[in-house]
Amino acid sequence: MSQKIQVFDTTLRDGEQVPGCQLNTEEKLQVAEQLEQLGVDIIEAGFPISSPGDFRSVEEIAKLVKNATVCGLTRAKKEDIDAAAAALKHAKYPRIHTGLGSSDTHIKYKFNSTREEMIERGIWAVKYAKSFVEDVEFFAEDAGRADLVFLAQLTEAVINAGATVVNLPDTTGYLLPHQMFQRINYLFENVPNIHKATISMHNHNDLGLATANTIAGIQAGARQVEVTINGIGERAGNTSLEEVAMILNTHKDLGFHTGINAQHLYPFSTFVSGLMGMPVQANKAIVGANAFAHSSGIHQDGFLKHSENYEIMKPEDVGVPSSAIVLTSRSGRAALRHRLQLIGFDFEKPELDKLYTRFLLMADERKQLNDEDLKELVG
Amino acid sequence: MSQKIQVFDTTLRDGEQVPGCQLNTEEKLQVAEQLEQLGVDIIEAGFPISSPGDFRSVEEIAKLVKNATVCGLTRAKKEDIDAAAAALKHAKYPRIHTGLGSSDTHIKYKFNSTREEMIERGIWAVKYAKSFVEDVEFFAEDAGRADLVFLAQLTEAVINAGATVVNLPDTTGYLLPHQMFQRINYLFENVPNIHKATISMHNHNDLGLATANTIAGIQAGARQVEVTINGIGERAGNTSLEEVAMILNTHKDLGFHTGINAQHLYPFSTFVSGLMGMPVQANKAIVGANAFAHSSGIHQDGFLKHSENYEIMKPEDVGVPSSAIVLTSRSGRAALRHRLQLIGFDFEKPELDKLYTRFLLMADERKQLNDEDLKELVG
Repeated sequence: MSQKIQVFDTTLRDGEQVPGCQLNTEEKLQVAEQLEQLGVDIIEAGFPISSPGDFRSVEEIAKLVKNATVCGLTRAKKEDIDAAAAALKHAKYPRIHTGLGSSDTHIKYKFNSTREEMIERGIWAVKYAKSFVEDVEFFAEDAGRADLVFLAQLTEAVINAGATVVNLPDTTGYLLPHQMFQRINYLFENVPNIHKATISMHNHNDLGLATANTIAGIQAGARQVEVTINGIGERAGNTSLEEVAMILNTHKDLGFHTGINAQHLYPFSTFVSGLMGMPVQANKAIVGANAFAHSSGIHQDGFLKHSENYEIMKPEDVGVPSSAIVLTSRSGRAALRHRLQLIGFDFEKPELDKLYTRFLLMADERKQLNDEDLKELVG
Repeated sequence: MSQKIQVFDTTLRDGEQVPGCQLNTEEKLQVAEQLEQLGVDIIEAGFPISSPGDFRSVEEIAKLVKNATVCGLTRAKKEDIDAAAAALKHAKYPRIHTGLGSSDTHIKYKFNSTREEMIERGIWAVKYAKSFVEDVEFFAEDAGRADLVFLAQLTEAVINAGATVVNLPDTTGYLLPHQMFQRINYLFENVPNIHKATISMHNHNDLGLATANTIAGIQAGARQVEVTINGIGERAGNTSLEEVAMILNTHKDLGFHTGINAQHLYPFSTFVSGLMGMPVQANKAIVGANAFAHSSGIHQDGFLKHSENYEIMKPEDVGVPSSAIVLTSRSGRAALRHRLQLIGFDFEKPELDKLYTRFLLMADERKQLNDEDLKELVG
């Protein structure tokens, strides 16, 4: 039996806080509408205390969204939780996301506090949030670097206080996948009430490992993933929604699935990238411009013989119109012949060989050849 | 004792074959020169048979490079190996990289052949390449999806034939890190002569897991990594050089190091990105424009108190001039006060609170505030 992984999208919170990515309320509403169509389970709509504009955005998204849970971020502070509760008043399924630092670095250098005080304050914040909504998620910031015995105590305490979800973020993007697995596994073995809550992954990508760490967390028992489209977010960003969704789709043997409609991935990626003015690099997994482009002769020849030689997903699966065969001086005869056929020319050896020699000289000079170049070549 | 991982850079081969990334000989020489300064051990300079321009590039790089091994790619074909041997004639440390498909999909649909024939042809190619150079690397294309028992037989056979390095690529970017670990571990336990060669990782990023798979391969015994700067390469690209290098630097407890001069990473990334016209997305790990930018109030406050709250590397470690504090409506009082101090204003509560309220309204409207905006705010 395949188990469902809850997809918690934070494009509008962790993604939107990135330099240059701020959206106004109207824009945030457009994204929220598309997030519902994409099939995410929870939309983190913003950080209501942070500014009047963001409060209004969360409030309007709460009114708009019909099926997904709408979530607002808070620190473990009364004014933050009050603001989130007020902004979420009209949500059909409201969630307050509250929490504080859990690593000794954060406890000492950010909160100037002690482990004991953090547990007390965490319990207080969860209980106070519970006075407004049933669904309260607690985040243990910098859990990736926290003392594991303390993290188990904190997790147990906030679940006892009523947390429905416990988010254990690798805030600084520090962990390796096998370490993430071991840490989450430790908590499942040492926190007696852990099955009363959903454990959530929220991993940053500072070392390029956010996606791998999130999958490792799922393998150890996490059942919610906090992600953004295109992996946008603080610094090197968050875990990419599209990567996690397609890993679970491609590796069905892992035994997990999400509610994501994968064919919306590429259109939604393009929409958000345009709206925020945040270009996606061509070699981005799943949604990059070249993700389904075949360039070298070896690859093009193999792809034309049988697409599965070089593709583990079909581009249509994620809403990309089709695979691309790009003609450059690294292309081979198979690709040249294929493209010539598409524009009405059919060459066999030895004519093809002669043409190919001239093709390479032209391609060394012009880099990428289009159909006009090919007509010139033939003509 | 920390063990050295050989860094095999393929920016000029797998990276350069990407649509739009083709470089002429002069440009390839500039990159090769900087690769030596960066400290890579092997430079894959190109695919000599692919075009006259690329042959010339490999030939000139072979003449230029002093310390690194210079490598040329070939298929397991006489004409390819002849071309590579000729192009590498002047290299101080030449290496021929030859090989063929190893998965049943590739064997059947690309080569229309059998496992037995592939082993014979692999042996032949290694022996033929050895007639020109001592250092011969064999690639078993699509090893990530190959039958593991067959892959062990193929690996043993090509090592017996004289391969100094065996590259086991996850060509389609299919594997999960724990699967990669198990597969490489299996080979170390079942290939009797495996310690006579270096095992190499060459992983593609179709599911966003190339870096994690490469680290998993190292943990299982691989001692060479095939990487590109910025992770450029076919489709979603190759493993990012900068990510692997900084993971091994940040996690010294793994017991591995590379010869990479990390302070060259960011300047080199910028140079290659500009030369190839391949933008790096802002949220790219290590080398993205925002990799060391702190935006939300929570993060800025924590960062200003103690940078290790939110940074596991210093930007200077990888050649980035400094961390950035960007002022938006997600920023808090700590960041506003810090930036006002930098331009000569010192505000305490309650003046700071009043200013902050006006700051948020301005930031909701203008998105990102610069020093001129702040002067207007104060004035």
